Amino acid sequence: MTDQGEYKRDLNYIPDRITADGRDGWPVEPGRYRLVVARACPWANRAVIVRRLLGLEPVLSMGIAGPVHDERSWSFDLDPGGRDPVLGIERLQEAFFKRDPEYPRGITVPAFVDVPSGQVVTNDFAQMTLDMSTEWTAHHRTGAPELYPEQLRDEIDDVAQKVFTDVNNAVYQCGFARSQEAYEHSYTKLFARLDWLSERLAGQRYLVGDTITEADVRLFTTLVRFDAVYHGHFKCNRQKLTELPVLWAYTRDLFQTPGFGDTIDFPQIKEHYYVVHKNVNPSGIVPLGPDTSGWLTPHGREDLGGRPFGDGTPPGPPVESERVPAL
Amino acid sequence: MTDQGEYKRDLNYIPDRITADGRDGWPVEPGRYRLVVARACPWANRAVIVRRLLGLEPVLSMGIAGPVHDERSWSFDLDPGGRDPVLGIERLQEAFFKRDPEYPRGITVPAFVDVPSGQVVTNDFAQMTLDMSTEWTAHHRTGAPELYPEQLRDEIDDVAQKVFTDVNNAVYQCGFARSQEAYEHSYTKLFARLDWLSERLAGQRYLVGDTITEADVRLFTTLVRFDAVYHGHFKCNRQKLTELPVLWAYTRDLFQTPGFGDTIDFPQIKEHYYVVHKNVNPSGIVPLGPDTSGWLTPHGREDLGGRPFGDGTPPGPPVESERVPAL
Repeated sequence: MTDQGEYKRDLNYIPDRITADGRDGWPVEPGRYRLVVARACPWANRAVIVRRLLGLEPVLSMGIAGPVHDERSWSFDLDPGGRDPVLGIERLQEAFFKRDPEYPRGITVPAFVDVPSGQVVTNDFAQMTLDMSTEWTAHHRTGAPELYPEQLRDEIDDVAQKVFTDVNNAVYQCGFARSQEAYEHSYTKLFARLDWLSERLAGQRYLVGDTITEADVRLFTTLVRFDAVYHGHFKCNRQKLTELPVLWAYTRDLFQTPGFGDTIDFPQIKEHYYVVHKNVNPSGIVPLGPDTSGWLTPHGREDLGGRPFGDGTPPGPPVESERVPAL
Repeated sequence: MTDQGEYKRDLNYIPDRITADGRDGWPVEPGRYRLVVARACPWANRAVIVRRLLGLEPVLSMGIAGPVHDERSWSFDLDPGGRDPVLGIERLQEAFFKRDPEYPRGITVPAFVDVPSGQVVTNDFAQMTLDMSTEWTAHHRTGAPELYPEQLRDEIDDVAQKVFTDVNNAVYQCGFARSQEAYEHSYTKLFARLDWLSERLAGQRYLVGDTITEADVRLFTTLVRFDAVYHGHFKCNRQKLTELPVLWAYTRDLFQTPGFGDTIDFPQIKEHYYVVHKNVNPSGIVPLGPDTSGWLTPHGREDLGGRPFGDGTPPGPPVESERVPAL
């Protein structure tokens, strides 16, 4: 919080990277690392989607924390016995403390955990997905899309920065504002950017170039949660996503694309926000709405052209153990 | 609250009535009574609308409490010096205590106050509007509609009872529920009734008969607040009103009818709910949304026929001192 009641996200993460050359001591290696996520979390959702799109499932396993965490940690309540079956831990905190017994910051997902040592390698969500695209290429599936193509990186970075500040993070600033002024500032910034995005996406199917890129992944994970949580719980309520025709069609288009909607668990998303943020929702009651039947309706975005996977192909269905409940 | 966490409204009001024959000691008399309301309150809104439709302004003055009240009372913060200019009081509580120094229940609007004695006559909102229709007939304007016509009373009462239980009161039960089960029960009841109402109103312009009646007034005051407060603040979020085509057109039709929309002050409505219910919204921050520009768009309901005011006419514009800000 600042003096003006504005919510400030702590952006200090463990900065190590898993790279092809292993320069930070963490070389890309099949089977060595575990991606720990929670279905609820939009930042983790990016990594879940990118892993699916690139087909990294066989080489990078995934642990899924439950939707509800306490002050201290995400925990593995969804797993039998409440323990991650690979890491053998109950709370993600344990992997952070293996790395640094005095780890002073938030226990966040997504995190890459080194399975042999049980230590967190990094929780730097923004770098993690880029590295999955650029450092893990030797293990991408056949037909994997280029989510961060070299010739578009400047534009992707530029759009992603705008989307981070004015959308991904702004919804939290609306919800966690401690003053009317701070809230109104964030709300105004958010909807101005959504208008900008609507205009940009009215004539082109994807955010940058004519294929799905990292920029789309980053916008999708916020938009897909918009009506379920940000609209009501965080007071981002100028309109629902369903009332913003271009963005609603854009988000539906991605939702219906393999690798996107099949990572979304609306009940877990709602439970997380409405139960964990007791300061916003003291009763802990989780809304029954919104109706989700619209997600599978035709979006008409094919008419804009675009090649979702470029020269590549869509991913196959999720592995059995990672399926989310149908809408 | 019940054991199951269900919110129960205290329906014990001061039961006196102002009647043409004065049998309770309160005869209809021009200039004698003051209707005290708050723009925010849906129960008071009924009386504000009925007074406008019947043209009772010249004989029944109106005091308007501010949107925010404390545990004890509505107060006249909108008036110069914070005092109602006719009753000379700062808090509506004073008029209740004049009536009964030990008055044990909630200080509610709407209330009829006897100006000479400063005492509350009644706060029995359901009876108040019916009496305005049936006991104050000598003072209705020329062209006043029949809001409670004898031959339709059974049907109006029946519909109004369903609407009270499943809509007017159910939105509060959703918002004030103390258990997930109680919330879900009320939510389910609410939306089942809204579906029933959508079906009923798909083929007829008004709820009962072919003209505006008391039944429409009672449904309108909840629906008009739906997206502004009940959808997010009370978790009535299967759909917004704007996503329920029949009810959205029906409510817009009434909103655009003189006597309805010109009684609605969205900023006061939002401020009331979001500031007063600290247990639901601890931050007290008032959402900037929803966008209200849709209220004045064409509704197309004229095609269903219907005669809004029967053989009567619409009321003229509100008196200057009672105008609400434009959308």
